[in-house]
Amino acid sequence: MMSRRGPYAKGEAKRQEILDVALEVVAEMGCRKASNREIARRVGLSQAGLMHYFGSREDLYVAVLRARDERDDAAFWLPQQDIRGFLAIMRHNSQVPGLVQLYVEFSAEASIGKHPAHGFFVERYAWLRERFIGFVRFAQEDGTFGAGVDAGQVADVMIAAADGIQQQWLLDRDLDMVARLELVWEGLAAVSRGAVPTV
Amino acid sequence: MMSRRGPYAKGEAKRQEILDVALEVVAEMGCRKASNREIARRVGLSQAGLMHYFGSREDLYVAVLRARDERDDAAFWLPQQDIRGFLAIMRHNSQVPGLVQLYVEFSAEASIGKHPAHGFFVERYAWLRERFIGFVRFAQEDGTFGAGVDAGQVADVMIAAADGIQQQWLLDRDLDMVARLELVWEGLAAVSRGAVPTV
Repeated sequence: MMSRRGPYAKGEAKRQEILDVALEVVAEMGCRKASNREIARRVGLSQAGLMHYFGSREDLYVAVLRARDERDDAAFWLPQQDIRGFLAIMRHNSQVPGLVQLYVEFSAEASIGKHPAHGFFVERYAWLRERFIGFVRFAQEDGTFGAGVDAGQVADVMIAAADGIQQQWLLDRDLDMVARLELVWEGLAAVSRGAVPTV
Repeated sequence: MMSRRGPYAKGEAKRQEILDVALEVVAEMGCRKASNREIARRVGLSQAGLMHYFGSREDLYVAVLRARDERDDAAFWLPQQDIRGFLAIMRHNSQVPGLVQLYVEFSAEASIGKHPAHGFFVERYAWLRERFIGFVRFAQEDGTFGAGVDAGQVADVMIAAADGIQQQWLLDRDLDMVARLELVWEGLAAVSRGAVPTV
């Protein structure tokens, strides 16, 4: 007896195959036109066939960003749920320049309004902000952070610094993103332990 | 006797008039298609006529970004050449959302390669980095910063935080960008005075 979930499951499996391939292709090539062609080629579809599974180029790339977050989550955040998990992702980012390009381009466009990635980035900021608030709690428990700082503000500036430093790194691949973010984190820790305001 | 510089000077004057108008229009509306129409209308040209002075939409908007830096420089940086000058610009930015949108969009696209704004942003980062290195020197002279931090790294992370926080602000206009950047700066000051590393 044929499973009624058969055709749907088959479509889902193909969609997942496309996402796995797209993650690899984008990591190397970014989200230029050539990437669409290469993804289609590797999964044995025409570019129109590819769009059958994702609706539009933008929807495909939002799905890639979402799949990447899920993969990074499993690989880097589950093992160490404090700031080191985030720094491990930033370290990994320097191996996948095309994904950094995609992230920088789409996050900028999404902040501007009607872009298909707008909803994704609004949700993602909220989710990442909660993560960072958790990192601050962890750090307060282990004593590296004190009580003298608002965890939400720490989250805002760490996310901002991470977004901005990736943009700089695209222009200068020798920039050590992890060292820069460690510096910001150290500074915030010092403020939380009662450093004196300077401005 | 007709001045030989006449026609050129006239072209330059029109170009400057367009830039002044474009700064106002973009501040309100950003760099969408409607802005091109509105700029052309206000200076009494067709959109094709507008492009006669700037070559392309992208070149016009790069010229707008450059004109804006010059204006901000005169208005906010000349009066106070330390970090407060930069914070004054960030405070002013919340009054010109369209210019923030243009900056966020073009800086992201420019980090990706062949965009017409690429050269502008490479130069701008180098220029802004020197500015921030100067801010650190000022702060070291007045004693708010110590010697325990690399001024270039401070520059990198302050620029990154400013870029990233503008992107967040576009999604949430209640975010206090200046307060967030003051927090980062305070932290860096604390590190420079010898705070203990935490990561």
